[in-house]
Amino acid sequence: MSSDSKLSGAGLRGQVAGQTALCTVGTQGSGLNYRGYDVDDLAENCIFEEVAYLILKGHLPTQTELDAYQRTLHGLRSLPSALKTALELIPASAHPMDVMRSGVSLLGNLEPETDFSQQAECVDRILALLPAIVVYWYRFSHEGVRVDTDTDEATIGGHFLHMLHGKPTSELHAKVMNVSLILYAEHEFNASTFAGRVAASTLTDIHSVITGAIGTLRGPLHGGANEAAMEMIEQWSTPDEAEAAILDKLANKELIMGFGHAVYKERDPRNAIIKKWAEVLSKDVGDEVLYPVSERVEAVMKREKNMFCNADFFHASAYNFMGIPTGLFTPIFVMSRVTGWAAHAFEQRANNRIIRPSAEYIGPEHRAVVPISDRD
Amino acid sequence: MSSDSKLSGAGLRGQVAGQTALCTVGTQGSGLNYRGYDVDDLAENCIFEEVAYLILKGHLPTQTELDAYQRTLHGLRSLPSALKTALELIPASAHPMDVMRSGVSLLGNLEPETDFSQQAECVDRILALLPAIVVYWYRFSHEGVRVDTDTDEATIGGHFLHMLHGKPTSELHAKVMNVSLILYAEHEFNASTFAGRVAASTLTDIHSVITGAIGTLRGPLHGGANEAAMEMIEQWSTPDEAEAAILDKLANKELIMGFGHAVYKERDPRNAIIKKWAEVLSKDVGDEVLYPVSERVEAVMKREKNMFCNADFFHASAYNFMGIPTGLFTPIFVMSRVTGWAAHAFEQRANNRIIRPSAEYIGPEHRAVVPISDRD
Repeated sequence: MSSDSKLSGAGLRGQVAGQTALCTVGTQGSGLNYRGYDVDDLAENCIFEEVAYLILKGHLPTQTELDAYQRTLHGLRSLPSALKTALELIPASAHPMDVMRSGVSLLGNLEPETDFSQQAECVDRILALLPAIVVYWYRFSHEGVRVDTDTDEATIGGHFLHMLHGKPTSELHAKVMNVSLILYAEHEFNASTFAGRVAASTLTDIHSVITGAIGTLRGPLHGGANEAAMEMIEQWSTPDEAEAAILDKLANKELIMGFGHAVYKERDPRNAIIKKWAEVLSKDVGDEVLYPVSERVEAVMKREKNMFCNADFFHASAYNFMGIPTGLFTPIFVMSRVTGWAAHAFEQRANNRIIRPSAEYIGPEHRAVVPISDRD
Repeated sequence: MSSDSKLSGAGLRGQVAGQTALCTVGTQGSGLNYRGYDVDDLAENCIFEEVAYLILKGHLPTQTELDAYQRTLHGLRSLPSALKTALELIPASAHPMDVMRSGVSLLGNLEPETDFSQQAECVDRILALLPAIVVYWYRFSHEGVRVDTDTDEATIGGHFLHMLHGKPTSELHAKVMNVSLILYAEHEFNASTFAGRVAASTLTDIHSVITGAIGTLRGPLHGGANEAAMEMIEQWSTPDEAEAAILDKLANKELIMGFGHAVYKERDPRNAIIKKWAEVLSKDVGDEVLYPVSERVEAVMKREKNMFCNADFFHASAYNFMGIPTGLFTPIFVMSRVTGWAAHAFEQRANNRIIRPSAEYIGPEHRAVVPISDRD
């Protein structure tokens, strides 16, 4: 053990843990690139399925490839009946991320990946089913409705909203969902992706990889910041009230959710993109509170702490304007990031060594077991 | 990124990734210590529940503490009815590790950890329920039997065998299960434990941590070596036949399961312990094949390759002598290692920084999105 490399920083910060061709964070272009493309460029010019294709298969699809891919995903939207029954057993009080985690885990029992040659097929199925898993449970447990998961919506984002609201998704909402899913799709060795790669390094099945990543994303230090931002901003009815409350929070050294980032130091490239769409949605619904409040919070945080919004902050109001319950915000993150998780698992499988670091021991010295009658 | 520490070795081998007071591997005493105690000493003198208590709570229990702990675990053996119904939906063809993963994940929906103050209670519940999760599913799907999970067995190992065989567990079998569960309980930053710590570092719930760890252990490079060893040795009916087959495999450069170890270089301290009990069980059942075959394989591997048995090799015959189906070998590993996983999660929570390493980018240069009509 004496030959082991010392810990470079808590949480492996700044420690290279492997290679990837998927993503750069905080370097070229806008600061976030998927396989070399700026996330701005992708969000402006693509639907989510193009980006999923890029991430999973390595290149942006031609129109023919995209059409075929959308048809494939479309054909995979039906929940297995055993999975429906299981989802009906989960109470309304459950955490939606626990439902996502369990849904994927159960799917692995019903439709296992028995060989790595099935990996792309299994991931397409998971990608196609994630919106149905969470919405089927949500509407059954909250409204007693057994939702029809075979909608005609062209995109995953439109499909999700259609099932949730029980009506066709508007063009504007489908567009914003595409943008949102593109922004969250991939982010290098973040904690959930890294947990997934550690799992993948034992050559386990893809459902285990995704299940582990969902459970990791569930933590409040990782996913969930958009939900926390929503719970904060919906308390205030005017920008002035928000400003006073933020100043108060800062004086009490409270954490303001949706600001700052572990990797980005000056700005989160995803913020400007989703902010623009939050503003469009705000006008569309005639909002005079949530967006102005959000803008003011952004300005106050800049002025007082020189802190910037991350991807999560304006996602909160954007999702809210589309009628999405706050508890389903992080599950949307899963519907998107599953592409990055899966692509990282494919990379790990293609050039694998089991991820097994060392630990520094700080426990008791060597000692002998005392007979139980003599212990105190 | 230029300031990031370079990769010291693939799979973070030799890279210290954190601190632990739980375990040393390959250093003091026998080479495997839990909180300073030799695993030999623990296996000789303790039942598994004492070791679980040691790992989870920090010290070996007094008799009063142990009695109370066993009563607590005993009182937690009933499966929630929704979980039974869900387990009944899983087909007999499912991978038992997928059942374990899904069972714990679903439990997190039914009995969530809503606050870290509940962590010990949640882990006791998981520890008490794991045998029931796998055996309830196994016997229902294979035999149509709805097993009674409230046995009177004093220990977890005895409880597992009692449910599996539908009769009280003998003293000898209960003893061997105690030894086996002690040997598998903890092993520092192995891949499943490390995946669990990465999950825990986002401050997610304990069910997510355990679910992720189970999915990681499922991989053939991690758990499952005892199952593979069993499938190998049960093909042979005499030691000579085994020797010829092993020589053949070695000539063809095939991997022999149950030999060698990523950390141990000279011997696996767990082997001698379980080997002794495999021999006792062999005599007890009047076996004249499996144990002699196993011994010969061990001798040939030593003579030909200077390779030693790891913990898994003699576990195969030991479990087989107790009538355990091969597919349930790795789930037993889960019933034991859950103590290590949970204790590592507690450590991570107590002194946390989110685990978020960096990656070396090896993908395409910065490029612009080409309109879909122009792609080829």
